[in-house]
Amino acid sequence: MSRWATVLAGGSGTRFWPLSTPDSPKQFLPLSGERPLLEEAVSRLSELIPPERILIVTGAPLVERTRALLPGVPKDNVLGEPRAASTAPALTWATSVAQQRDPDASLVSLHADWHVGDAAAFCRTAEHALEVAERHDVLVTVGIVPSRPETGYGYIEPGEQLDGDARRVRRFVEKPDADRAAQLIAGGALWNSGLFAWTAARFFAETEELAPEIAPHLSKLASGAVSDFFGSVTPIAVDVSHFERSEHVAVVPGAFAWDDVGTWAALARVRATDEAGNVIVGEAFAHDAHGCILWADDGPVVVDGVRDLVVVRAKGVTLVTTRERAAGLKALLETLPQSLLERPS
Amino acid sequence: MSRWATVLAGGSGTRFWPLSTPDSPKQFLPLSGERPLLEEAVSRLSELIPPERILIVTGAPLVERTRALLPGVPKDNVLGEPRAASTAPALTWATSVAQQRDPDASLVSLHADWHVGDAAAFCRTAEHALEVAERHDVLVTVGIVPSRPETGYGYIEPGEQLDGDARRVRRFVEKPDADRAAQLIAGGALWNSGLFAWTAARFFAETEELAPEIAPHLSKLASGAVSDFFGSVTPIAVDVSHFERSEHVAVVPGAFAWDDVGTWAALARVRATDEAGNVIVGEAFAHDAHGCILWADDGPVVVDGVRDLVVVRAKGVTLVTTRERAAGLKALLETLPQSLLERPS
Repeated sequence: MSRWATVLAGGSGTRFWPLSTPDSPKQFLPLSGERPLLEEAVSRLSELIPPERILIVTGAPLVERTRALLPGVPKDNVLGEPRAASTAPALTWATSVAQQRDPDASLVSLHADWHVGDAAAFCRTAEHALEVAERHDVLVTVGIVPSRPETGYGYIEPGEQLDGDARRVRRFVEKPDADRAAQLIAGGALWNSGLFAWTAARFFAETEELAPEIAPHLSKLASGAVSDFFGSVTPIAVDVSHFERSEHVAVVPGAFAWDDVGTWAALARVRATDEAGNVIVGEAFAHDAHGCILWADDGPVVVDGVRDLVVVRAKGVTLVTTRERAAGLKALLETLPQSLLERPS
Repeated sequence: MSRWATVLAGGSGTRFWPLSTPDSPKQFLPLSGERPLLEEAVSRLSELIPPERILIVTGAPLVERTRALLPGVPKDNVLGEPRAASTAPALTWATSVAQQRDPDASLVSLHADWHVGDAAAFCRTAEHALEVAERHDVLVTVGIVPSRPETGYGYIEPGEQLDGDARRVRRFVEKPDADRAAQLIAGGALWNSGLFAWTAARFFAETEELAPEIAPHLSKLASGAVSDFFGSVTPIAVDVSHFERSEHVAVVPGAFAWDDVGTWAALARVRATDEAGNVIVGEAFAHDAHGCILWADDGPVVVDGVRDLVVVRAKGVTLVTTRERAAGLKALLETLPQSLLERPS
C-alpha cells in the first residue's frame, strides 16, 4: 500500500478581491507569507508524500497555471475539473486516479488555501490519520483543536475511543452561533478542517453504499469519461455524502495552528502585526491606526486615524471596507458593475 | 481710473495630497468642478475685469504652468515670486505693477483656490467693493455672510455705517472657538475672506505709514529689483500689515456661497453629494457608506460599510483618513518617508 495526497485547489476568487480574481484565486496568492498558499501546501506535504504521489484538483482553466507553479509535481497529477461540483466529486476523481495507478492506495486530502502554523506537526497528524484509516478501515477526519469560538467553521463532537487518540464521531455540527461554539469547545469538540484520510477501497465502498449522487456515475471515471462524470453527478460536499452518512468514520485531533484564510480579516491571524495590531503587506504606512489590514501591491497606501479597516490596492483597484464586513465581500461584488470585476489585471 | 484684479495663486500642495503636490498645488486641481480652481477664478472675474488687467501672483516654479493654463491672460501678467512671503509683499508687488502701467489703478484682490457658489453675485460684490474703495479712499474687505460657526476662518465685526451697506470695521477676530464663532455670528460678524479692494494710491499711502516690514523696500520694486524686494521684506499678511493697523478701512458684505476649499472635507460643501452624503469623483463606488469623500483618479475605488472617510487614489498613492483628520494632513505628511512624497507623479 502506498500513500497519496490530494490537494483541492479550486476557488472562485471572490474572497480576496481585488487581489484575487477568477484567473488568480486565493491559492495563487502569497497571503500567509512570501509564497503562494498552494506552493506552501505542496512544500509542507513533501516531508510525508513525494511529489509523484501528490494530486492537485483545480478548475480546468487553472491547470496550466498550477503546473507552472509546481514544477516538481508531474503534469499528469494536475487534474482539471470540467466544472466545480463541490468536494465529493473532486475527491472521488482523485481517489480513482490514485487507485488506477496503485490499487492499494491510501490518500490524505487537504485544501490548497490553508495557513498551517507548524508543518512538522501537520505532517505527523496527517501520517497518523493515514495510519488510523489503514489500520481500522475507516474514513478519518482530522479535528483541529479550536483556538477561538469561531462561527464560520463546522465542529466535530468526538465519540468513544477507537485507538489511542483516535475516536468515533458522535456528531458533526455545522456553523454554530458564538454561544453554541463556546459550549461545543468546552465539551471537547474540534474544528472540522477538511483534512481527511482514507483507503481508496473504503472510500469507494462507502461511495457505492451511501452516495447516490455519485455512485451511479463511477463507471464513467473508470472508462476515462471525466467530463461525463462531472456532467452527471450532483454537486455535494464529502462531509455530507460520506462522513455524515457513514458508520466507518473516525476523528483524530490536530494540535497545530490552522486557518482557512477565508477573508481579508484572517490575515491578522496568519501574518505578523505591528504594535498597533496592523497587518502591513507592501509599501503601506499606518499612522495612528489600529487593527487594520493594509495590502499595497500597486503604489503606496497611507492610512491615518482609522481602526479595523481593510485597505487593499491591487490589480489597479482600491478597496476600503471593515474587517467585520470583509467576510461579505461576495455580496458586495454582486452590487458592482460587471465591467469593474472583469477589468484586465 | 481703471480697475485691475490680482489673483493670489501660491500654495505648497500639502492640503490635498496625494492629488496636490508642490508641482501641482490646489489651484491647478478641479476640486470644486470640472475645471482647475484658478481657471474658474479667472473666468469668474472676466465679467468684471478684462484679462489684460488681471494679474496672477504665483511661485516662480509655477509661472509657466500658470501661463499655459490661462492663455487669455498676457504672459507679463503672471508674476513669479522669488520666495513665498505671505500676502502683503505679493499684493504690494501686484499693486505696484498695476500702478506702473496705470497710475490711477484700483485693484480687487482674491485667492485662486476658492469655491464661489454664484459668480454674478461675486462680481457685483467685487464691483461694489471697488466703488467704495474709490469713492471713500479706503481699503475695503469683503465680509462673507457666514453659513456656519466655522473655527478655521477669521471674523470681522462691522462698525458704524459708512455708505449704504459699507461700514467701518470695529474689530478683526482671528479663528475663534465654536462658541465664540456662534456669538460673533449672532452679533452680525462676517467671515474675513481675503477678497479686498483698494486704490493703488491709498494702498501705498498706508504701506508707507503703517508697514515697516515693507515700506523701506518699495524703491526696489520701483527700480525692478523684485528679487531684492522679496529678499528684504519681512513676510506678513496684508490683514495684519494694513487692515488691522489702518484707520482707512471699510467692510462690505458678500452674500454668496464661499469656501476656501481648505481640506478634503471641504469637498462635501462645494460638490454635489449622493443621497448618503458621499462625494464621488471619478470611478468610485460607495456601498452602504455615508459621508465619505471618494476621489478615484487612478483606477476604481470601492468602499463598503464605512462612514466619514476620505479615500483618495491619485498620483499612484492611496490615502485613507477621516474627514475630521483631513485638516491635519500636513502633520501626517511629516511622518512619512521623504521618498514617498517626492515620488514622480
